[in-house]
Amino acid sequence: MLYLVGLGLADEKDITVKGLEIVKKAERVYLEAYTAILLVEKEQLEAFYGRPVIIADREMVESSSDEILAGADKTDVAFLVVGDPFGATTHTDLVLRARSLSVPTRSIPNASILTSIGTTGLQLYNFGQTVSMVFFLETWRPASFYDRIAENVSIGLHTLVLLDIKVKEQSLENMARGRLIYEPPRFMTVAQCAAQMLEIEEEVKKEGVYTRESLAVGVARVGAVDEKIVAGTLGELCDADLGRPLHSLVLLGRRTHDLEREFLEEFAVDKEKFASVWKRDYEGKQ
Amino acid sequence: MLYLVGLGLADEKDITVKGLEIVKKAERVYLEAYTAILLVEKEQLEAFYGRPVIIADREMVESSSDEILAGADKTDVAFLVVGDPFGATTHTDLVLRARSLSVPTRSIPNASILTSIGTTGLQLYNFGQTVSMVFFLETWRPASFYDRIAENVSIGLHTLVLLDIKVKEQSLENMARGRLIYEPPRFMTVAQCAAQMLEIEEEVKKEGVYTRESLAVGVARVGAVDEKIVAGTLGELCDADLGRPLHSLVLLGRRTHDLEREFLEEFAVDKEKFASVWKRDYEGKQ
Repeated sequence: MLYLVGLGLADEKDITVKGLEIVKKAERVYLEAYTAILLVEKEQLEAFYGRPVIIADREMVESSSDEILAGADKTDVAFLVVGDPFGATTHTDLVLRARSLSVPTRSIPNASILTSIGTTGLQLYNFGQTVSMVFFLETWRPASFYDRIAENVSIGLHTLVLLDIKVKEQSLENMARGRLIYEPPRFMTVAQCAAQMLEIEEEVKKEGVYTRESLAVGVARVGAVDEKIVAGTLGELCDADLGRPLHSLVLLGRRTHDLEREFLEEFAVDKEKFASVWKRDYEGKQ
Repeated sequence: MLYLVGLGLADEKDITVKGLEIVKKAERVYLEAYTAILLVEKEQLEAFYGRPVIIADREMVESSSDEILAGADKTDVAFLVVGDPFGATTHTDLVLRARSLSVPTRSIPNASILTSIGTTGLQLYNFGQTVSMVFFLETWRPASFYDRIAENVSIGLHTLVLLDIKVKEQSLENMARGRLIYEPPRFMTVAQCAAQMLEIEEEVKKEGVYTRESLAVGVARVGAVDEKIVAGTLGELCDADLGRPLHSLVLLGRRTHDLEREFLEEFAVDKEKFASVWKRDYEGKQ
């Protein structure tokens, strides 16, 4: 059996009791380590599980999935995924590959940022589609997220923006020379995301889908003891410092509930500003 | 401290290791038992925790929250929620009440149907807002879900429909006579949901947001060993039997990915029909 086991968001104890039992008895244990990361190191997981953990990078999962699946028709293989196993497309691929090899699969669900974002007090049924924000490069500033946000905004919904992480990345030079030297991991911050969003709105699209005064919420380390929430305008969030990764951002839709305001205002960068923008642009809107 | 502890979806072992540690040391343990249910009885939870569990019904949570919060400024109280703690609005209320009493709170995230629905192979970033479907009564057939679905459909997105559960419900007669006699619990099935959706489309709204030939996916007992997935047209799902609760339904948006088709077709009521409707109405649509 191939078990896809969700690890939740923060540390080794966010695995479920059921998931832990599977990990402890599996023949091999892989950790998918490129679509998201836990806030603890692999060694801490290994100590907690009492088992070695094999890091599965993108290349292994996408090109060498048969290696992961080897023998899984007879013994148990655990494939650990940060968050929920079905948060990322790539795991659907792995299950399809297992199916074609007649390897049975089972998924052990866990928390995902897609629902844990409810920690902001924003109502989950008010969210539209989720978008991703990648690190802009000098010559590559993809704006496709903007059209998705525009769709959500058109029907008044919040948008969760998931922020880029870069792990095991080679510099162009090292790649060209075939040197397996990797850059230090990078994680996009709420401030970087807010700035990129405003750049696309103000310099490229100019459709007024959102402005520097639109309200947004930044979160960091959701589910951890030092979870942090900051609410403010996109302009304000360009200067917000939420500390170490992982960060996410929510752009508010106009269809809000007063409970959302009440919950969020405690986390406002500037409570007065937050209240006045809320009253002007959000309160009572449908 | 008030801990809101997510229990996940299926049984007592879906709690996280962190959540279980909190439950074992809390002064009192409440179980919210009206927005969702686990697939096991309270006694099974108590045996697993080694602790008594107090059932918190809607009335207690909404009207007597101070009872739950009593002493939580000095000792630990665990409030268990099926799924993720922030899946339902009512828990935001409880946290706000705690805040006003200076009771610190912490939430322990867990799996929610909002992400575990990914078990269908449908891509989570293709989902729009979530809607709820209540049991229709003779004279009360609320159609507000329809307008929300219409919004999602207009931008090509999938819609997760959460199905009504009725627990601790009094008959009108018993209520009138003040008798605290409760009806047996009721859980809406995928078939009932599909039929109610078609009734509103065909007899009330007639806007063509979806038809009897629209593709949908029914799921039951997500995360449990006997999890079941059935894909088909809304018409076909009117006759689908997915067994015991809980059920949920997804109406597909036209913006699909071929991986979704490949994953789903294994679960189709009628594979040929599924393939032909997909090809006609979904494939390559944006």
